Amino acid sequence: MQHALLQQAARSEPMVDVFRNVRGKTLSLSAPLELDDYAVQSMSDASPIKWHLAHTSWFFEQFVLKKYLADYRPLDVRYERLFNSYYQTLGAVYAHEARHLLTRPTLTEVMRYRHYVDEHVDKLLTAQSDNGLLNDAATLGVHHEQQHQELILTDIKHAFSRNPLLPAYRSEELLQPGLSRELKFTQFSGGVKMIGAELADGVGFAFDNELPRHRVWVEPFALANRLVTNAEYLAFVRTGGYRRPEHWLSDGWDAVNREGWDRPLYWSESLDSEFTLRGMASLNMNGPVCHLSYYEADAFARWAGMRLPTESEWEVATENISVTGNLLEEENFHPAPAAAEGVVPRQLFGDAWEWTSSAYAAYPGYAAGSGALGEYNGKFMCNQFVLRGGSCLTPRDHVRATYRNFFRPEARWQCTGIRLAR
Amino acid sequence: MQHALLQQAARSEPMVDVFRNVRGKTLSLSAPLELDDYAVQSMSDASPIKWHLAHTSWFFEQFVLKKYLADYRPLDVRYERLFNSYYQTLGAVYAHEARHLLTRPTLTEVMRYRHYVDEHVDKLLTAQSDNGLLNDAATLGVHHEQQHQELILTDIKHAFSRNPLLPAYRSEELLQPGLSRELKFTQFSGGVKMIGAELADGVGFAFDNELPRHRVWVEPFALANRLVTNAEYLAFVRTGGYRRPEHWLSDGWDAVNREGWDRPLYWSESLDSEFTLRGMASLNMNGPVCHLSYYEADAFARWAGMRLPTESEWEVATENISVTGNLLEEENFHPAPAAAEGVVPRQLFGDAWEWTSSAYAAYPGYAAGSGALGEYNGKFMCNQFVLRGGSCLTPRDHVRATYRNFFRPEARWQCTGIRLAR
Amino acid sequence: MQHALLQQAARSEPMVDVFRNVRGKTLSLSAPLELDDYAVQSMSDASPIKWHLAHTSWFFEQFVLKKYLADYRPLDVRYERLFNSYYQTLGAVYAHEARHLLTRPTLTEVMRYRHYVDEHVDKLLTAQSDNGLLNDAATLGVHHEQQHQELILTDIKHAFSRNPLLPAYRSEELLQPGLSRELKFTQFSGGVKMIGAELADGVGFAFDNELPRHRVWVEPFALANRLVTNAEYLAFVRTGGYRRPEHWLSDGWDAVNREGWDRPLYWSESLDSEFTLRGMASLNMNGPVCHLSYYEADAFARWAGMRLPTESEWEVATENISVTGNLLEEENFHPAPAAAEGVVPRQLFGDAWEWTSSAYAAYPGYAAGSGALGEYNGKFMCNQFVLRGGSCLTPRDHVRATYRNFFRPEARWQCTGIRLAR
Amino acid sequence: MQHALLQQAARSEPMVDVFRNVRGKTLSLSAPLELDDYAVQSMSDASPIKWHLAHTSWFFEQFVLKKYLADYRPLDVRYERLFNSYYQTLGAVYAHEARHLLTRPTLTEVMRYRHYVDEHVDKLLTAQSDNGLLNDAATLGVHHEQQHQELILTDIKHAFSRNPLLPAYRSEELLQPGLSRELKFTQFSGGVKMIGAELADGVGFAFDNELPRHRVWVEPFALANRLVTNAEYLAFVRTGGYRRPEHWLSDGWDAVNREGWDRPLYWSESLDSEFTLRGMASLNMNGPVCHLSYYEADAFARWAGMRLPTESEWEVATENISVTGNLLEEENFHPAPAAAEGVVPRQLFGDAWEWTSSAYAAYPGYAAGSGALGEYNGKFMCNQFVLRGGSCLTPRDHVRATYRNFFRPEARWQCTGIRLAR
Repeated sequence: MQHALLQQAARSEPMVDVFRNVRGKTLSLSAPLELDDYAVQSMSDASPIKWHLAHTSWFFEQFVLKKYLADYRPLDVRYERLFNSYYQTLGAVYAHEARHLLTRPTLTEVMRYRHYVDEHVDKLLTAQSDNGLLNDAATLGVHHEQQHQELILTDIKHAFSRNPLLPAYRSEELLQPGLSRELKFTQFSGGVKMIGAELADGVGFAFDNELPRHRVWVEPFALANRLVTNAEYLAFVRTGGYRRPEHWLSDGWDAVNREGWDRPLYWSESLDSEFTLRGMASLNMNGPVCHLSYYEADAFARWAGMRLPTESEWEVATENISVTGNLLEEENFHPAPAAAEGVVPRQLFGDAWEWTSSAYAAYPGYAAGSGALGEYNGKFMCNQFVLRGGSCLTPRDHVRATYRNFFRPEARWQCTGIRLAR
Repeated sequence: MQHALLQQAARSEPMVDVFRNVRGKTLSLSAPLELDDYAVQSMSDASPIKWHLAHTSWFFEQFVLKKYLADYRPLDVRYERLFNSYYQTLGAVYAHEARHLLTRPTLTEVMRYRHYVDEHVDKLLTAQSDNGLLNDAATLGVHHEQQHQELILTDIKHAFSRNPLLPAYRSEELLQPGLSRELKFTQFSGGVKMIGAELADGVGFAFDNELPRHRVWVEPFALANRLVTNAEYLAFVRTGGYRRPEHWLSDGWDAVNREGWDRPLYWSESLDSEFTLRGMASLNMNGPVCHLSYYEADAFARWAGMRLPTESEWEVATENISVTGNLLEEENFHPAPAAAEGVVPRQLFGDAWEWTSSAYAAYPGYAAGSGALGEYNGKFMCNQFVLRGGSCLTPRDHVRATYRNFFRPEARWQCTGIRLAR
Repeated sequence: MQHALLQQAARSEPMVDVFRNVRGKTLSLSAPLELDDYAVQSMSDASPIKWHLAHTSWFFEQFVLKKYLADYRPLDVRYERLFNSYYQTLGAVYAHEARHLLTRPTLTEVMRYRHYVDEHVDKLLTAQSDNGLLNDAATLGVHHEQQHQELILTDIKHAFSRNPLLPAYRSEELLQPGLSRELKFTQFSGGVKMIGAELADGVGFAFDNELPRHRVWVEPFALANRLVTNAEYLAFVRTGGYRRPEHWLSDGWDAVNREGWDRPLYWSESLDSEFTLRGMASLNMNGPVCHLSYYEADAFARWAGMRLPTESEWEVATENISVTGNLLEEENFHPAPAAAEGVVPRQLFGDAWEWTSSAYAAYPGYAAGSGALGEYNGKFMCNQFVLRGGSCLTPRDHVRATYRNFFRPEARWQCTGIRLAR
Repeated sequence: MQHALLQQAARSEPMVDVFRNVRGKTLSLSAPLELDDYAVQSMSDASPIKWHLAHTSWFFEQFVLKKYLADYRPLDVRYERLFNSYYQTLGAVYAHEARHLLTRPTLTEVMRYRHYVDEHVDKLLTAQSDNGLLNDAATLGVHHEQQHQELILTDIKHAFSRNPLLPAYRSEELLQPGLSRELKFTQFSGGVKMIGAELADGVGFAFDNELPRHRVWVEPFALANRLVTNAEYLAFVRTGGYRRPEHWLSDGWDAVNREGWDRPLYWSESLDSEFTLRGMASLNMNGPVCHLSYYEADAFARWAGMRLPTESEWEVATENISVTGNLLEEENFHPAPAAAEGVVPRQLFGDAWEWTSSAYAAYPGYAAGSGALGEYNGKFMCNQFVLRGGSCLTPRDHVRATYRNFFRPEARWQCTGIRLAR
């Protein structure tokens, strides 16, 4: 992980406060769950909530406490293996798909572990508030924790969707239906553009995969003013979109047939409602379609006579746009209709992650760091596509214009949607 | 389920007391578990403890309350599908392998369900203590519950064994090592023998698969005085038993290679300890080997120059022997060494289920009942082998000489062992 | 293989003539095929015709030439592994499912191998026509070759059925439709019966799994006068037989759903024609239904309110009945309608193998021989059911009343049908 | 397929002669095979030679004869489905993995089909030698045929490698060992570069995926003077390259463990020989390593402290280099050592396809054509990596600097190797 700390100096908040807030946020996000919900793992890509709570603590233990706290003694050395997600260089990793088997440590013990780690990190950050390397490591831990906040919500949503009782994470009323907004396009000029995170003195944070900032050649392009809506996607479904191979990538067509896909992941068979974190809800025709694979996003775009943007195009279009929108802090937990008319692209941040047509790859000059943190991002640069912009489940201060999320093209359990380009 | 109630009249205990005792026993067996342990399902053959607790209640609801309690209203009609194990004639069955996804109803709600059913059955049995058909149905429910008591223990043992922390169900000292007992054989005469449960006036209970009592021709045979020990099985392992195809059935040899078997399920790689319900324990050389598949039992017998008994032989040998031994009530939770010297067969009841060489099949004249209970036993008469005698996890008043347990030949998570014949 | 040679003395034909006839018959059965057809393997249970031709030669090489011909030198020592089917004690076995990869040796070379073996066996049998052990070994080879004659036809039928061009093995007219014959039952008395092949001086041949002749207790039973017809099975299909779980064994119901079965293997979707060795033919309503799994045979019997016979019952009923019927020599290559009215069981030999409800198991006192031939039959006594009576693809002098064929309950590519009992 | 015909005018040869030569070449490449070899399909990615011979004829039938020959009548309309590879818009496609089941049409019939198509195309091209669209379509057919020429050799190599007899395609002596050449790097300048095939008046041919020619930004880079050798790769193997996860992409590490990879596809376990089209040969330490997956190429580069080139870099470096090298016409059928010392990149064409780090994607402005030919390339732009430069099995006039081959990262049966960049 060659992460960069870019605006450290400019940050008004002490690191220990950032740490406390983010760690507390994780617990408050989990609070609406029943104790039984913490243990479930509904597929091998997902993890139990209990495991997320333990693993994020493990991350601080491995990369902050063990490195910066002299004489740190782990609460339980056996956790080192149990809660290692995928850092092969730290030793044997417990099988991802078997995380649900870990009834021990119990949730109570995991909470004790979490508390133990919190106490030690808290003291360390308080005592060494000026230690730049320590603050860097803790910042990484905080961003890592935020990634798992989103995963906690997407994982529990998937598990709930598999239960015939269709439980709700939150039971209050859902979003307002909003208005229908005409699809328009803004034109952007081409040329040599700068892409990636800027390395300046003490300014902010970026993951290593956003580095280095570099030149790309971009052809002139146009980008849609909003995300594709449920109404638009429904037209694709109703006109046989899932039955006509000419819309699909070859691998996508295989997935459609192998998995029996005929609609987005959480739509009801009757095509008029969808499963949400607030239970089943009627399908909002003005709201963004979500929980689509790359294959579906790509097929829709081809059907519509357009295409998905490249990640460079997306980043060029988002330059100078501030991170606002329907993000986690809104507590909508679901994409919302575009708020305004007009040609200017809206919903760039929040609502739904936007599939780009760019395969996830190293930027020129990128090199994964050495040691375990070198495994954070680099080893996944294969068979995945880049998504941009965050979703309604992403914390606001976690995402940015240069942020590169990535998933396999068949993944549907993340809150993923479509922005068209041409 | 054409079960027969044979000694109903002779039973000294009122049915309601039997019911309360058995239902209470299930809870006390679960009591040593942490709350987290109730949710785990470590493979598709196993079920979460929470599910066992709900399903056994469901069974009384379906086959006692709905049938005999006028105006019975279920606590939650949705449970009808969730906790149906395999009764296809009652409607769509929730997928066995996905039981671990049911975080709702919560354990608290399942306990409420259990209590709700208990209250109603209790009142019903008290009010209609002379209703023979009702008592028959409740008796079946009680025996069904006892089957799940054994499953609760074998399922949690398997789940614990998959956790690198190797938790213990009970932490107190394990059994005494006992003495080494010489392997001897008793000779039994052949001829036409009667096999199966006796239908007499009001005498006891039997499952439909034990019926009807019928004639078989049995050749003279000899049966071992005790179960095969760990020491004996270790010799098989050490002399390359798992590497020489000539000992194995063809399907068994395939299983050895496909699954990488090289020792009993719970033995350590070092061959000197085994996982038990009290955690890892050193291998008791005098104790019975257990957690073997049929393939292993059969291969061992061939290697030893002997064979497994048929179920007819086993039943002939067990005639007039009372049900005593290392059964669930002893709370050993593990097979124990044979208690005495001598040629007389010991350990026929308890310790470990004994694989017979008999494929599980209908007795002549057997016909499964109509309706859902007809699915209890009959539809499994294919690709399974009969086991006899119960194990250290079987309640004493659940097993009998005519009792036919059955599992697939590759099953190893039940407490299964070997008695030799020749 | 503890095979017994029972009527050696009575045999009028010299062994060398028997050998030549059977070997020649294999080639004449293959003759209608195109060269391309010799290489195909349409599933892992089947083998290429070329492989059958080589393996049957290999069998004579291993068990006749190597044992009885001093200084025998194999044509190519590498064939020892390539054409070993499943004799693990002879060394590593080439993967069954990969037999179609063996483009070398070529068919020409395999024919040369076949010729080479034939020449040597021919000379050996001629020179030592009185060598009893040699004649025994050759007799086994001959019966083994006949088993492969049937496999050649069933395997090529399966391969042809997978080709959209639906080629025919033979193109001449199919059988006459015959007449509809009423289903009637003959009653047989029960008691202690003798089952299995008789060991007398020099009388005939039997496989080891037919031995020893032994006592069984049989209850009185009734057996149908003919095989179940296509008309009868069609009624089962049309009344939803494949959609109602109550007819099926649990494993059978799983197979129906997993494999999408809704009719016999070779029936057309329109239910009015079936694929035969003479190409597609209209479904003969009077003819026996064939190419059914055990699960289907069992479900049909249950639907019809009857059951399948046990192998003991079948053998009792067939005592003193001579081996005549629609066997391979008729060159019908397809089951034919019952030839006559009446209560007496017809079609016991030929037409279609009859599934019994008996799991394939060792007879009391059976012990597989030592060495490679001990693997011939014994190691398959698990997860298979016994079939009796031969089919229209079985050579007449290969089958007999005590003959035990066996297949897995899901197998459908053999010519298998149903005889009812009650 | 938006293919472009660029130097049509400049072509000295009439189209009909090109057609005859290429079609004849396919047959002469197949000539060393035994008849048995034409039927084999050793894995689902491969196809039988017979199928290649039919499918390439089918291609001319579909896209030349049906379109340009009035009143063309197919030899057999059923071939339309059987020999359609993946053009979904032409109707149901026969299952790829089941091509080996097609014993009919026989090889003789396929050759008749081939001849029938040849005759008609020949006449058509002769009669309408000035028809530009016809010549375009035939040119595409010719290039398509050349792709299958390479596949014929790679597919039969794979099939032979699975046969314990290890047959040889050609039996004459293999290549000279050559000399060891020092690894050196040439530096290339960065900036805006033009990539892709040039659209000029009547000049040559390109596949649609090479279009349009467009600008890219390239950073300065260095490229190796030759391919990685067996000696160099052996050092990677010997120092534990396949056992250390830090060298591997996450998906690559999964593949290593799932597939048990520990050396290149055709290397012997002893690491001193490899399977070639001339049978087993000792490993030439000076020769290029080949038959590697992308994962292995990438892991080797990381282990060596370097990286794979992007496809833009490769194309920039190859500008103005003529297509010469160890290509199919040399009839080496195996990569050869670099012929000369020096810093200038050698072996850019021929020897082994060079994995680039570029995911296979559309060039800016690319749009797949309409109709079936639109499926030729575009629908595969997902989960594949671009390879450049051709191999020892590629016809010389088939490859060019802008040519983009593509395979899944786990593919190893193509003749693929490594060129390093940094």
